[in-house]
Amino acid sequence: MSRPTPMSGFPEWLPSERIVEQRVVDRLRQTFESWGYASVETRAVESLDQMLRKGEIDKEVYVLRRLHADASDADSGIGLHFDLTVPLARYVLENSGKLTFPFKRYQIQKVWRGERPQEGRYREFLQADIDVIDVDSLSFHYEVEVAQIMSEAFAGLPLPPLRMQVNNRRLIEGFYNGLGVTDVPAVMRSVDKMDKLPESAIRELLAKDASLDDRQIDLVLAFAAISSHDGSFADRVTALGVKDPLLDQGLDELVRVIEGTYPLRSEQFSVTADLRIARGLDYYTGTVYETRMAGFEQLGSVCSGGRYDALATDGPTTYPGVGISFGVSRTLAPLFARGLLKASRSVPTCVLIAVSDESARAHSDLIGRTLRSRGIPTEVSPSAAKFGKQIKYADRRGIPFVWFTGEDGHHEVKDIRSGEQVAADPSSWTPPSIDLHPTIEATPLEKENTS
Amino acid sequence: MSRPTPMSGFPEWLPSERIVEQRVVDRLRQTFESWGYASVETRAVESLDQMLRKGEIDKEVYVLRRLHADASDADSGIGLHFDLTVPLARYVLENSGKLTFPFKRYQIQKVWRGERPQEGRYREFLQADIDVIDVDSLSFHYEVEVAQIMSEAFAGLPLPPLRMQVNNRRLIEGFYNGLGVTDVPAVMRSVDKMDKLPESAIRELLAKDASLDDRQIDLVLAFAAISSHDGSFADRVTALGVKDPLLDQGLDELVRVIEGTYPLRSEQFSVTADLRIARGLDYYTGTVYETRMAGFEQLGSVCSGGRYDALATDGPTTYPGVGISFGVSRTLAPLFARGLLKASRSVPTCVLIAVSDESARAHSDLIGRTLRSRGIPTEVSPSAAKFGKQIKYADRRGIPFVWFTGEDGHHEVKDIRSGEQVAADPSSWTPPSIDLHPTIEATPLEKENTS
Repeated sequence: MSRPTPMSGFPEWLPSERIVEQRVVDRLRQTFESWGYASVETRAVESLDQMLRKGEIDKEVYVLRRLHADASDADSGIGLHFDLTVPLARYVLENSGKLTFPFKRYQIQKVWRGERPQEGRYREFLQADIDVIDVDSLSFHYEVEVAQIMSEAFAGLPLPPLRMQVNNRRLIEGFYNGLGVTDVPAVMRSVDKMDKLPESAIRELLAKDASLDDRQIDLVLAFAAISSHDGSFADRVTALGVKDPLLDQGLDELVRVIEGTYPLRSEQFSVTADLRIARGLDYYTGTVYETRMAGFEQLGSVCSGGRYDALATDGPTTYPGVGISFGVSRTLAPLFARGLLKASRSVPTCVLIAVSDESARAHSDLIGRTLRSRGIPTEVSPSAAKFGKQIKYADRRGIPFVWFTGEDGHHEVKDIRSGEQVAADPSSWTPPSIDLHPTIEATPLEKENTS
Repeated sequence: MSRPTPMSGFPEWLPSERIVEQRVVDRLRQTFESWGYASVETRAVESLDQMLRKGEIDKEVYVLRRLHADASDADSGIGLHFDLTVPLARYVLENSGKLTFPFKRYQIQKVWRGERPQEGRYREFLQADIDVIDVDSLSFHYEVEVAQIMSEAFAGLPLPPLRMQVNNRRLIEGFYNGLGVTDVPAVMRSVDKMDKLPESAIRELLAKDASLDDRQIDLVLAFAAISSHDGSFADRVTALGVKDPLLDQGLDELVRVIEGTYPLRSEQFSVTADLRIARGLDYYTGTVYETRMAGFEQLGSVCSGGRYDALATDGPTTYPGVGISFGVSRTLAPLFARGLLKASRSVPTCVLIAVSDESARAHSDLIGRTLRSRGIPTEVSPSAAKFGKQIKYADRRGIPFVWFTGEDGHHEVKDIRSGEQVAADPSSWTPPSIDLHPTIEATPLEKENTS
């Protein structure tokens, strides 16, 4: 077999990168579980019928067939899931009699899309979703909670600063209603281009596509320009003089999300009310979330979601929900590619037990067992090579300690970084806690690159 | 959308079952890492070329195509991996310059096979593999190590007793060589049927298909009947009087595996030298492993593997290895189906904070934050319903504690199993450790059903 080459769009990690990914997933899981969210994993496949209900991305689905399906087999009609929301809807309907509602679940799994690969877009990638689903109606306070949970998870992650932008679809629709806008989606589509086009072009779009007059255009642009880190945006909206009951409800909700996440702000994480954010998808009906990573704005949003009034419906019953999805691969891949995030070593091993002679391997094994039973990841040297070679084995992997045992049962452990070697007892020696498991080393981007 | 039905061959777990699966995977990971094995995840897809090198299971591969691939797209030529060994071989070749050898990795991932589903055989299932790969030659002691690691992992799992059977291909081949057998594979195929056919039929097969004479048949059957929990099998082999250098080497190796795993035996786990075990696959060249679960022998082996001299080859370089693969889904699915294994609750939550009034929710949130910051999984009641209803919410999920706060700031916590309610301080109260996270409850099979 000749040497295979990487497959475009299907990123894979080296062991030291995988350690970072594991830590990120561990942190997410630990946070989600501490809030009482249950883990769910769904099968990788869904029926195409199920997936094509969201017509707009049917092109991206990978369809499966068995290699040697016989002629009598109809097309199997199944494909790989392209997100974790469609599977959740199906899982909730399928198991509704066995679940308790409100159903709070997290799901950390790979998803697949047959898109053209580029940085930030992959054909296989890892997502971490949290959602709360209820029956018929869902309390608003979960729209605050999911933002709090993601904030808390991010606070423990060694990532560049993450900036969450929040808006509220009721607020947007209420404002447009109050303004006499008839084609709300057309206005949203135009406002959504504010990042890419100059103001004059947006004005033209709003006039042509959405049939707005100059006063309406001024107010739409003034509204979309509003953002604040605290609740002060509300006064600026009120000052625009547009009145609508839905606007009042949306404004109140957005203030509660902003105030509820305020205590979680840090250098590393912020939440902003940003009235330009709308999220493309039609099914959002309340709070919407997007998140950008400082220095990596070109990736688009790495953590998005919102409130939807009908995740699924099962005849008489409707399941509303709210959820956020964090793109683990989308976030980590560019950091790995630039060498900004790595583990302190490529193996879990903390101590390498040297082997003086193959006939003494059983003795080294025993010391390994003793250290492991005390929670210290330990491996025994692959061979009784010269000690210099055994130390090199540890050094190449970043293993910090090498353990030597003399014939007289005297033990010594060497820190191969400092060269310091001290007597040690396998039943009591403990490495410094920073060395017990690999640590994550994050390099900040150059200041001038972070906006 | 009408209620969807489960898809045959693609098992999914309810939240309480998923908690059990997570614990099993956590235990495996923790054990593998404590021995210094690095985690690897490979992409779900491999090129068909890569996978079809193992010709015998090409029928089972799921091939992918994009739903709306245009006419210019050639067949994508990729499919879902059907095991974790083919991907490991490809990963090692692709990254050989960036890995350090011997390369010790574990991999816990879903695999897919388009087989007819039945108990113990699924179209999507979770495998946990450990392998050690080296360049050109691999030390024998890793053949002992991988069995020790799996033994240690099993010791911490709440499963029915697991019985590992070990043999050695050198021993088998040496014995057959010494006996003058010319068609070794034909003998192996016949011996492999000893479970299913009476001795007379096996004798007939050995005479006809493998052209053995009566003395050879007697010795082959006597050899295959040998098994022992300790090294005593070696004397029984020697007593058969067959001589061959490969036999001596295989015998010595098998004794070392049995003696190396001897200290890890328990009620829950045993290792036996069993000279009937051969494993079908041609590529094994040394130790081979199979494992049966007491009371579930009909599942076949749930944990298998062996030593192979050429996992992959890259022109001048060959990569020998040894590995074992544990079938997580194959083991857990029948236990879940029979209700023999479950979690003490369906959610991670240990404490539910009651809400006396929606206007006091912020106060309940604060207590939740305090308990979570102290490592206690906590959720706040979904609504300010009557306390009886809030207690029912906890009860339905198995949440053991409900927390009440009076207007005067006095806190009480109720154990809803005993009904006992005591004063508590959120900054110091600690639940009994058994309640902090869900525990796993295993029901033994009836004695008469375990063989």
